[in-house]
Amino acid sequence: MTAQPQISNSDDIARMMEELGRGARKAANELSLAPTETKNKALREAANALRARKDEIMSANAKDMTAASGKGISAALLDRLELNEARIESMAAGLEAIADLRDPVGEIIAEWDRPNGLQISRVRVPLGVIGIIYESRPNVTADAGSLCLKSGNACILRGGSESYHSSRAIWSCLQDGLAAADLPVEAIQMIPTTDRAAVGELLTMSNYVDVIVPRGGRNLIERVQKESRIPVFSHLDGLVHIYIDEKADPAKTRDIVLNSKMRRVSICGALETLLVNRAVAKDLLPAILDDLIGAGCEVRGDADVQALDSRVVAATEEDWHTEYLEPILSIRIVDDMATAINHIETYGSHHTDCIITENDAAAAEFMRKVDSAIVLHNASTQFADGGEFGMGAEIGISTGKMHARGPVGVEQLTSFKYIVKGTGQTRP
Amino acid sequence: MTAQPQISNSDDIARMMEELGRGARKAANELSLAPTETKNKALREAANALRARKDEIMSANAKDMTAASGKGISAALLDRLELNEARIESMAAGLEAIADLRDPVGEIIAEWDRPNGLQISRVRVPLGVIGIIYESRPNVTADAGSLCLKSGNACILRGGSESYHSSRAIWSCLQDGLAAADLPVEAIQMIPTTDRAAVGELLTMSNYVDVIVPRGGRNLIERVQKESRIPVFSHLDGLVHIYIDEKADPAKTRDIVLNSKMRRVSICGALETLLVNRAVAKDLLPAILDDLIGAGCEVRGDADVQALDSRVVAATEEDWHTEYLEPILSIRIVDDMATAINHIETYGSHHTDCIITENDAAAAEFMRKVDSAIVLHNASTQFADGGEFGMGAEIGISTGKMHARGPVGVEQLTSFKYIVKGTGQTRP
Repeated sequence: MTAQPQISNSDDIARMMEELGRGARKAANELSLAPTETKNKALREAANALRARKDEIMSANAKDMTAASGKGISAALLDRLELNEARIESMAAGLEAIADLRDPVGEIIAEWDRPNGLQISRVRVPLGVIGIIYESRPNVTADAGSLCLKSGNACILRGGSESYHSSRAIWSCLQDGLAAADLPVEAIQMIPTTDRAAVGELLTMSNYVDVIVPRGGRNLIERVQKESRIPVFSHLDGLVHIYIDEKADPAKTRDIVLNSKMRRVSICGALETLLVNRAVAKDLLPAILDDLIGAGCEVRGDADVQALDSRVVAATEEDWHTEYLEPILSIRIVDDMATAINHIETYGSHHTDCIITENDAAAAEFMRKVDSAIVLHNASTQFADGGEFGMGAEIGISTGKMHARGPVGVEQLTSFKYIVKGTGQTRP
Repeated sequence: MTAQPQISNSDDIARMMEELGRGARKAANELSLAPTETKNKALREAANALRARKDEIMSANAKDMTAASGKGISAALLDRLELNEARIESMAAGLEAIADLRDPVGEIIAEWDRPNGLQISRVRVPLGVIGIIYESRPNVTADAGSLCLKSGNACILRGGSESYHSSRAIWSCLQDGLAAADLPVEAIQMIPTTDRAAVGELLTMSNYVDVIVPRGGRNLIERVQKESRIPVFSHLDGLVHIYIDEKADPAKTRDIVLNSKMRRVSICGALETLLVNRAVAKDLLPAILDDLIGAGCEVRGDADVQALDSRVVAATEEDWHTEYLEPILSIRIVDDMATAINHIETYGSHHTDCIITENDAAAAEFMRKVDSAIVLHNASTQFADGGEFGMGAEIGISTGKMHARGPVGVEQLTSFKYIVKGTGQTRP
């Protein structure tokens, strides 16, 4: 552990969290009424601060990197932790892109009149206070803080202990932005300790926190789902499937499968299991296997797939359950679409699933029956992303069905209220 | 306790609930794909069954009434429990009205194209399995079961122990409807025991239940919020306020206040606290007090209100916190709108609040600043109702901000999925 301002007494932590919560609630009330230009000014000033203070941020990051190397952390994790000039510029540009998004607050979602003359409208309002718990990537500090700010919500951030100094340096720039726009700095709070007890407090502060967003691995999500007394937007696994239908176009299929698996293997929209209709397996799979294996992907298959190519390793039951996030793909040959859908419902995570076919009726049936946040027809699963959907930045992809499903952008961080205008009506 | 098919062993209860849950999940999958006409047929056949089996329902109800009288239950509760021909006809008509509603499932909420040619649409789908826990009124069985069915959700109903036989008789008619339409009877389940342990199981069956809707008093809601591992649509108190602004029209004010308080005192949209701007209190309150007291309402007020009328009882701090649901009103005189809003945010329940004024700017400010599910201008608070909003029947009014806020009708019982259509696109 690096030296950090630790608060170890549990009463102190409870008191500190109570104070953070109270401050966030008060700031949320102010922020919910803040004009769009004021919020945008805070975002642009924060972007400027990130650029102006980049040396400070990189030296904070160096502390985290040194401590992490000392703990023998994997190269992949070190890469996620590292900040350099390009990454800082990308964060700053991200803040500006969020400033450019339409402000969802105050938007009239629907309006109608009643026969008695009442005029009813449903108007977007912020959710309130959002608690965000994330792991090693320090840029989440800027992404999450700015999405909450744009949508009029206060937030309480809790970064990973590995990125503690980096996240605090970024957070400090967000504070600069708030101050420059005369918004309360308590609108974006960061928990000043890496003690896990603080997370326990955060998850039970239902007076002060309206929703919890966990961003991280399975252990984090499971802890949050178990302990939280507050509604959670959760993103469980992205155990993504493609089903190759008997009417699939061979060239499209090769492109889509390779891109879905190998463009970036570590994102939640990356393909993990390929299901192939038996009628076309012999025709289509050899080229697909060449593409994948040629690109460095390990392929695990059922006996039918192994029979087609000796380089295919035997898949076990465990493989169908696994979100690899690595260059590994499991492949199964199925007799029909019903078997494919049944496989997806049995092993999938309701995140993103895709059918490749030239038969529109089959595509429509697949997309209606597969119960996932995102269903695709003839397109790479790597499009499962708020930016690719045109929603701007996202805080994650929700696999739950309550409130937000799929990419969680600024609009999904809002609630609504009903405004009813009358001229003296009473109810008979 | 009346004689009921009790299951007392806790292992047996867990097993029984597991079976109910599994059946509901399976039925939910079927129901999510059921055509509108099939669901409507089930609703209309259930309405017919209620009419055909009314004698049976009334004799089941007589059992409940006898047991309840024996326990010395209040006249108001007995009234809520009682079923007669008119009430059964009203339930049947309610089912038919829900059949007449637009089916929300499959509705395209939004659709847009991306520059790369991807076509994205957000389409409504059912939530899945809904657990509904309610208290004495047995007609909730028909209302809740039919709203879930229409919106393509399976449900597990848990009625109050006082209405056990009545609710089961009604449920049996819903089963007739499902069977007549060839839908799985497991789509509407009813827990066959009044043992409270079954509620504990229901609240933790997150594999089988997607959302919990508690309908009842504060104790029930608090138990559910404490124990549930499943998201909850909760309806807390309806501590409803009206603020009479200095520019209020006297005649409208009298009508709206009297109607808001006295039309029906026991509904959640009934007025509980009246806040009056000091500038108009002397002019407007005497007539309002005459109206209310003349209609049998007890008035509790602060010292300023008491000074205006000797019939006004002193209000205590407790009164500002109280949802009476009785012919009692608390009244406070305030110096300005800011004080009124502060009172509402301090004591209110974020349900429904109203301003009476001829000043549109003041009305807009009030409605923007008051953080309630429903804010009204110059209309009775008793309009806080899904039917009055034109949404058809409602399962309750949610005071939470997640997913559903305000009246929860068929549309609020849905989620959505993203359907993405491509022509072979891969992500660069």
